[in-house]
Amino acid sequence: MGSPLSEFISSSEPFSYSKEFKPMNPEEFRDKAHKAVDFITDYYKNVETFPVLSQVQPGYLKNLLPETPPNTPESFDTILRDVQNVIIPGMTHWQSPNFFAYFPATISSAAFVGEMLCTCFNAVGFNWIASPAATELEMVVMDWLATMLHLPKSFMFSGSGGGVLQSTTSESILCTLVAARDRVLNEIGVEHVWKLVVYGSDQTHSTYKKACKLAGIDPRNIRSISTRVEDEFSLSPIALREVIEADLKEGLVPVYLCVTTGTTSTTAVDPIKELAEVASKYHIWVHVDAAYGGSACICPEYRHFLKGIEKVDSLSLSPHKWLLSYLDCCCLWIKSPKLFVDALSTNPEYLRNKHSESDSVVSYKDWQVGTGRRFKSLRLWFIIRSYGVENLQNHIRADIQMAITFEKLVRSDVKFEIVVPRRFSLVCFRLKQLNGFDSNCTEFVNKMLLERVNSTGQVYLTHTVVGGIYMLRFAVGATLTEERHVISAWELIKEMANTMVKVDS
Amino acid sequence: MGSPLSEFISSSEPFSYSKEFKPMNPEEFRDKAHKAVDFITDYYKNVETFPVLSQVQPGYLKNLLPETPPNTPESFDTILRDVQNVIIPGMTHWQSPNFFAYFPATISSAAFVGEMLCTCFNAVGFNWIASPAATELEMVVMDWLATMLHLPKSFMFSGSGGGVLQSTTSESILCTLVAARDRVLNEIGVEHVWKLVVYGSDQTHSTYKKACKLAGIDPRNIRSISTRVEDEFSLSPIALREVIEADLKEGLVPVYLCVTTGTTSTTAVDPIKELAEVASKYHIWVHVDAAYGGSACICPEYRHFLKGIEKVDSLSLSPHKWLLSYLDCCCLWIKSPKLFVDALSTNPEYLRNKHSESDSVVSYKDWQVGTGRRFKSLRLWFIIRSYGVENLQNHIRADIQMAITFEKLVRSDVKFEIVVPRRFSLVCFRLKQLNGFDSNCTEFVNKMLLERVNSTGQVYLTHTVVGGIYMLRFAVGATLTEERHVISAWELIKEMANTMVKVDS
Repeated sequence: MGSPLSEFISSSEPFSYSKEFKPMNPEEFRDKAHKAVDFITDYYKNVETFPVLSQVQPGYLKNLLPETPPNTPESFDTILRDVQNVIIPGMTHWQSPNFFAYFPATISSAAFVGEMLCTCFNAVGFNWIASPAATELEMVVMDWLATMLHLPKSFMFSGSGGGVLQSTTSESILCTLVAARDRVLNEIGVEHVWKLVVYGSDQTHSTYKKACKLAGIDPRNIRSISTRVEDEFSLSPIALREVIEADLKEGLVPVYLCVTTGTTSTTAVDPIKELAEVASKYHIWVHVDAAYGGSACICPEYRHFLKGIEKVDSLSLSPHKWLLSYLDCCCLWIKSPKLFVDALSTNPEYLRNKHSESDSVVSYKDWQVGTGRRFKSLRLWFIIRSYGVENLQNHIRADIQMAITFEKLVRSDVKFEIVVPRRFSLVCFRLKQLNGFDSNCTEFVNKMLLERVNSTGQVYLTHTVVGGIYMLRFAVGATLTEERHVISAWELIKEMANTMVKVDS
Repeated sequence: MGSPLSEFISSSEPFSYSKEFKPMNPEEFRDKAHKAVDFITDYYKNVETFPVLSQVQPGYLKNLLPETPPNTPESFDTILRDVQNVIIPGMTHWQSPNFFAYFPATISSAAFVGEMLCTCFNAVGFNWIASPAATELEMVVMDWLATMLHLPKSFMFSGSGGGVLQSTTSESILCTLVAARDRVLNEIGVEHVWKLVVYGSDQTHSTYKKACKLAGIDPRNIRSISTRVEDEFSLSPIALREVIEADLKEGLVPVYLCVTTGTTSTTAVDPIKELAEVASKYHIWVHVDAAYGGSACICPEYRHFLKGIEKVDSLSLSPHKWLLSYLDCCCLWIKSPKLFVDALSTNPEYLRNKHSESDSVVSYKDWQVGTGRRFKSLRLWFIIRSYGVENLQNHIRADIQMAITFEKLVRSDVKFEIVVPRRFSLVCFRLKQLNGFDSNCTEFVNKMLLERVNSTGQVYLTHTVVGGIYMLRFAVGATLTEERHVISAWELIKEMANTMVKVDS
């Protein structure tokens, strides 16, 4: 360097090290990243040719990889070849157009690029100064999405609330539940924590119970209110009131209700308005989990599923399900950021600065479980700008239209029935109970059908059991799915069923 | 399609939609992603030319972006131009070679490609069948890293334990704390939750307190044991025992201890072995938070910082800090997966399958807060294979060597002093207290120095206060940092100091 300071630069450490090791050499990066882009493009082009459901057996991988890490470098091409030959056979291909399992995890070119930039900056946006753009773009984008959903101003930064990106619905529930819990405990005292009761239905996502347990709610106080087929498996406000009243008689303290817009099993929709009206009488925090169904509400014709949303305390929705964002991206809006921050804030000296002290900025570390956080809003910003609201609405409509197609195909075959009404892009169906068959037998036949269909590797769908009925779930909406894939899937299902069941029609 | 089924394909929905909207057209993806690669390469080449610390004012962004989302698409070039002109000025550039704040968030070409593939697959690996490769590669890589750290077999899948990738240390602490809490509550009854006490030092990361509050520990029962300058701010086993004994006398129940290997303020190292020996007498779960310091322990000469690790229950380490992995990537190893899963498992019907029921496979959803999870192990796999263990060790050594250089430069100037001994690649220093100055005055001068240095935009460093002493933190190790950046930073600091303070030497 020729610096006058070079006398200080001699090594005194006992071990030698190589200054030549550059983990980020931009030209080398360019070369490898371009290769990766082509690899990924080929993957998306060919994903239809792989078995959707991986055909490997448990433990397949450990025999294909060394037990200990390599001491010296391996070539990029070797590793990429192993992705092709070792990893891909073990993948269940969520991006296959023939993936109809669970709920789709949707993607887009725009979100991929947004994610690349998020990775590139690798900014740890725990507070404003750590990257002002990361905090402020998230605020802008959360208000944009709130606008798309016609949420009231009470959930927006431009009003009195605000939004934050979480990784998962689980975190959104945990954080809001803790805010609700602490609001009550501040009044009644921490020693009464065992009295707190939380509410949901037997269709609320399984993660709700986990979040409640994490937050220290006594598992015996997690109410899972039964739903009925007559209510299309939605939570009944009358049943809710009865359960709350019974708890009050026991001296317990109701604290939180989780309402679902589009349950995982059957996309049932709980009546937000009526439930919130019940809850408000008891000062219960109401959270709406619209992880899947919420995305549809950007279309005017589906917005009614959020009727009454102005009465709740918080709402979460996962664009990684149906808004093309890749994992992991869960939007959470809250009406009372102050309550939220009271429960979740930390203020260590090493993160203090004049802005954080002045209260003029949002410190997103106080809106989540962790301290560090990624610049995820870039993805949503790229999606919304690249496609525009109209295309996003059409994307939702196109998926629902394909589900309607599948529903019609099922109805056209007398051997099958639609088990619960289709609301979004999930169709719940099964082989009918035949004369002379009992319900166990019907379940067995449907299980066998599912297993046979999935074992072909041509499609992947999953099942559920609701109200005692075993049913198959056909979830339309993987990003690459076209109508022809839905039709082929039906033909395969029908063909398999025909080999198993004969009906006089 | 010419399919006999086409009669079913007519639309009956009231709104029109465009089938032409393809959010993932592979050739369009290829084009945009290649452009993004070149944009990112240019960013890494030029990042040194941007002010490290963003110079924008709070609220800068909302005036530059529309308040409502666009209805129609905007061009890719327009959006990318906005990244350049609107986002980048609001970034604090964590990847600048002149970033010496907090702890570095390190990166690498290999991890970037691994992350691209993780994004590409977008597999939601909540259980084995949802993508066998995602579960099994994580198991392999966690065992590899455990091998690199010379962890005992009791933390490895090839032994009796296992590892999992979390997003943050906060989640690792929360999950292990809940497992520890439930182990005790299963014995003493949930109604005694208010008796549980947890332990750490006044140097334990701020997120620890938040995790404890999330888990429902009474905030009054979170012990933050004072450390002393004589112990180099490490937690004293003697002090720990005294505090535990006092709690037992009060009828409280000790449950969890968080030990830190490399604290955030000064990289203090708590004595694992001695603390674990105290804790074991009281059946306290011991967790080691080695988020930053743990990475150095892949080098034999630093492994002694983990001495006694075989006596603890869990250990977390964040490769997103010092092992080139990008955010967010925190490794957690546990000795008793069963205890962990007991506390965190869910078993909804819609996720059941023959493998999950047979107990033959790991369901990682039962090892974390959420249900969904990304295929993050690809990044670590790419890093370890692309570079090999030796290069990774040399990377750690090179950073520490640069910190030693900076330390020597500080010591060479009589106006400055090293406040706490350097252990890793963080140097804590300050302008000395001068004759006739009181400690407030010294703090003020150091604050002014920090502000002046950062306001140049040429470097970014942060501060802390430990033992009542305000000090500057110079954290070496941003991936692009070379010795010349460290020397230039010192010259800037010295120059600024010279304009503020004159000493006879």
